[in-house]
Amino acid sequence: MSVDTAYTELMEFQRQTEALAQVMGRLSWDQETVMPRGATAQRAEEMAALEGVLHGRRSDPRLAEWLELAMPEDDEAASQLRLIRRMHDRATKVPSRLAQEIARVTSAAQGIWAEARAADDVSMFLPTLSEVVRLKREEAAALAAGRDRYDALIDDYEPGVTAAAVSALFDRMRPRLVALREAVLGAAFQPPPLSGHFGLEAQVRMARDLAATFGYDWSRGRMDMAVHPFSSGSGCDVRITTRVVETDPFNCFYSTIHEVGHACYELGIDPDYALTPLGAGASMGVHESQSRIYENQIGRSRAFTGWLFGRMTERFGDFGVADAEAFYATANRVQSGYIRTEADEVHYNLHIMMRFDLERGLIRGTLEPEDLEEAWNTRFLEDFGVAVDRPSHGMLQDVHWSVGLFGYFPTYALGNIYAGCLMQAIREAVPDLDDQLARGDTSGATGWLRENLQRHGGLFTPHETVTRACGFEPSEGPLLDYLETKFGALYRL
Amino acid sequence: MSVDTAYTELMEFQRQTEALAQVMGRLSWDQETVMPRGATAQRAEEMAALEGVLHGRRSDPRLAEWLELAMPEDDEAASQLRLIRRMHDRATKVPSRLAQEIARVTSAAQGIWAEARAADDVSMFLPTLSEVVRLKREEAAALAAGRDRYDALIDDYEPGVTAAAVSALFDRMRPRLVALREAVLGAAFQPPPLSGHFGLEAQVRMARDLAATFGYDWSRGRMDMAVHPFSSGSGCDVRITTRVVETDPFNCFYSTIHEVGHACYELGIDPDYALTPLGAGASMGVHESQSRIYENQIGRSRAFTGWLFGRMTERFGDFGVADAEAFYATANRVQSGYIRTEADEVHYNLHIMMRFDLERGLIRGTLEPEDLEEAWNTRFLEDFGVAVDRPSHGMLQDVHWSVGLFGYFPTYALGNIYAGCLMQAIREAVPDLDDQLARGDTSGATGWLRENLQRHGGLFTPHETVTRACGFEPSEGPLLDYLETKFGALYRL
Repeated sequence: MSVDTAYTELMEFQRQTEALAQVMGRLSWDQETVMPRGATAQRAEEMAALEGVLHGRRSDPRLAEWLELAMPEDDEAASQLRLIRRMHDRATKVPSRLAQEIARVTSAAQGIWAEARAADDVSMFLPTLSEVVRLKREEAAALAAGRDRYDALIDDYEPGVTAAAVSALFDRMRPRLVALREAVLGAAFQPPPLSGHFGLEAQVRMARDLAATFGYDWSRGRMDMAVHPFSSGSGCDVRITTRVVETDPFNCFYSTIHEVGHACYELGIDPDYALTPLGAGASMGVHESQSRIYENQIGRSRAFTGWLFGRMTERFGDFGVADAEAFYATANRVQSGYIRTEADEVHYNLHIMMRFDLERGLIRGTLEPEDLEEAWNTRFLEDFGVAVDRPSHGMLQDVHWSVGLFGYFPTYALGNIYAGCLMQAIREAVPDLDDQLARGDTSGATGWLRENLQRHGGLFTPHETVTRACGFEPSEGPLLDYLETKFGALYRL
Repeated sequence: MSVDTAYTELMEFQRQTEALAQVMGRLSWDQETVMPRGATAQRAEEMAALEGVLHGRRSDPRLAEWLELAMPEDDEAASQLRLIRRMHDRATKVPSRLAQEIARVTSAAQGIWAEARAADDVSMFLPTLSEVVRLKREEAAALAAGRDRYDALIDDYEPGVTAAAVSALFDRMRPRLVALREAVLGAAFQPPPLSGHFGLEAQVRMARDLAATFGYDWSRGRMDMAVHPFSSGSGCDVRITTRVVETDPFNCFYSTIHEVGHACYELGIDPDYALTPLGAGASMGVHESQSRIYENQIGRSRAFTGWLFGRMTERFGDFGVADAEAFYATANRVQSGYIRTEADEVHYNLHIMMRFDLERGLIRGTLEPEDLEEAWNTRFLEDFGVAVDRPSHGMLQDVHWSVGLFGYFPTYALGNIYAGCLMQAIREAVPDLDDQLARGDTSGATGWLRENLQRHGGLFTPHETVTRACGFEPSEGPLLDYLETKFGALYRL
């Protein structure tokens, strides 16, 4: 090992680690889309074995030596080293036994969650959830090394962000969101929901068209069905999933566009970064900014819904919506629904605020898993004014906690905030954006995002990534302004 | 490390290796069924990285120490140690660099082969084939350590068998097979081929029914489409693939039954052996005995084809075959076809003999890849009396060489021979077998196989496995007797 060769050796070693991490992603994809149901226990062992390999490589003592010796020649190399150092620091804090145990338990937990959700039975899920929470508390304690445990988990998804900062942010956002929600729900004008039946195959065909419309590269991806839609993979194999509810095509269409946003981010990264730490999104917050801007600021805009109305009319005939204006209102209908992934833009961040408080309690130990259902339902009634009618509409709705994703939820809100900022920048840079979107041409917006944000992958910190793209410091202002303007007009406030 | 704990530690280590080997199998499955075409190069790196991990574990020096210390308490433990020792011996002979290079090159080669086959263009495949041959020669030399290089490769698939033994076996079989072939092709009675069109979806539904009829456990498996059908996986996740030719439903149905035979072998192994060396088939020859007996001795029997005729009539209506007797003849029609996987039972072993000679030449260096096409076509004309009309009917038809499977082909012939012996034993043990098969009930035959052979997995050597199941030493006699009796009657010789 020498100064001259350290960087090259390190990157060669890391490349294989990144390749193995992609394999882990493929196993998750497989499990959630095509795996036979009887394979759950075996798959958990497979994932635990692979996690053992990954953890061993990420905590390999040679990394410390290479990091000590390697001299970055440029900003790119410096960023690679920054990300490898970060990965190594985290891995060395978590015992291999614990990392493997988390992989094993969360792999099996996912199937148990899906069954409990289908059966609407919290008791089926509770023992597993308790086990996951116990393990994640242990991991958080190891990572925190005396600091806040929940912060240690957030840091995995959004480096540099703390629970205190998120909390302060949410305190600033909540009054304006609640005021908007009250005004909208109290408005005289209330758009009707979509009614009727929209066949599965026709929805899937439309979803495929939408993916292509947003620039998804089918030669490096595919679309399958999943209970909880997700995107998966980096580099040349980035897959999306969707789901179909035959009475609610927006569920399929907008979750598809959302996942396409994630996928296009990964696919848009400079190919030179493939199988290196720079070859993935900068953070989950930045990732969510892409999925949310594709889905909402672009996909639910007046201009784009006008185009979508035309396409849906071609495919489904007259489906009971008079014109593009009425369709726009229906596609943006605000209501106190139970389900986060189906929530309108006004309610969405309120869902996140609630999950943030609950999962922080679970990790800090102020809330126990057996008390979660009551806590969820009480809080939902307070925040949304509706009583949860069944667990699949309540604490069983999201896959996240079953797979150990604690600290992830805040990144959705950060993503919304970043999306608000990015859209402000796009509107300045692409003056005829609405004309383009009205023709179903998203390339002005998505091309801007690829050029100014996506291609950089992990080159900059999350905050830098967004700041450089926008040309200004991100804050919640642009998002809240956008929401108040959009829904104020739509609901004739 | 102590005598007391060595076996336990060894098996714990090995369990993770087996789990990672299953992951490798899943990557291959993914690549051949669902992977986006643009992911080929990245997948090659992923597989090479995982091969590096597997090779490192299989050649880990701790294995030698554990193997030295471990005291087997029973036959099962002794067999585990035998298989681990064998694996370790082989792995230590092959440099990690070479093992990874083979994984990388063969992963990419598979896609190149599929494209070349589709384009019917040998020149597209030749550079890759040359590279694979070069690497496999190097691996064979490393494994052979001065002994015969091709033997060293056969040994991977059929431990204990040599090229000399295969050669002598083929010399004994060839005269009777050639005589039978000549008699059959010269017979006055010649059954017509199937004609007409059989829709893709109906074929797939029928294939799924056939898989269930042969006892395939759908809760631990699934069926997808592949260019070259295969089965994949052990334990609780054993998947099959099939393909559809709309003018030839037998292609789909019998390749499905064949793969179900492989899959049922894996699924029938004692669950206690899962994720241990005993938890897979004893050898590829024994594996092929299961796939071939399911496909031919059972699936193409007069009794079973009678049942199949009824089911096909229900599904496809009148498809131009008068009755069950005529259907039986058509399903067993003998002709000098180009394609091994579609070959009748009389021709099948002649295909293997030809591939055996060619691949032995490629590995020993007496045949170069650039001369393969001419050698193939010359030999095919000699053995089959027909000139190859295009490469996809010739040297591009099989996936094997692209993925580095040299030494595998002889196991098909060994499988046929074992199947002949096993069927003789089944007919003695299940006197009313034909009555069962005529009702579409395969459980007498498949249950016997599971009980007497499949459940043992790798507990016995391949030769022991078959000998114990049959109750006699396997030889080519029962297979040749069966073929002469069956086709003599069918062709009214």
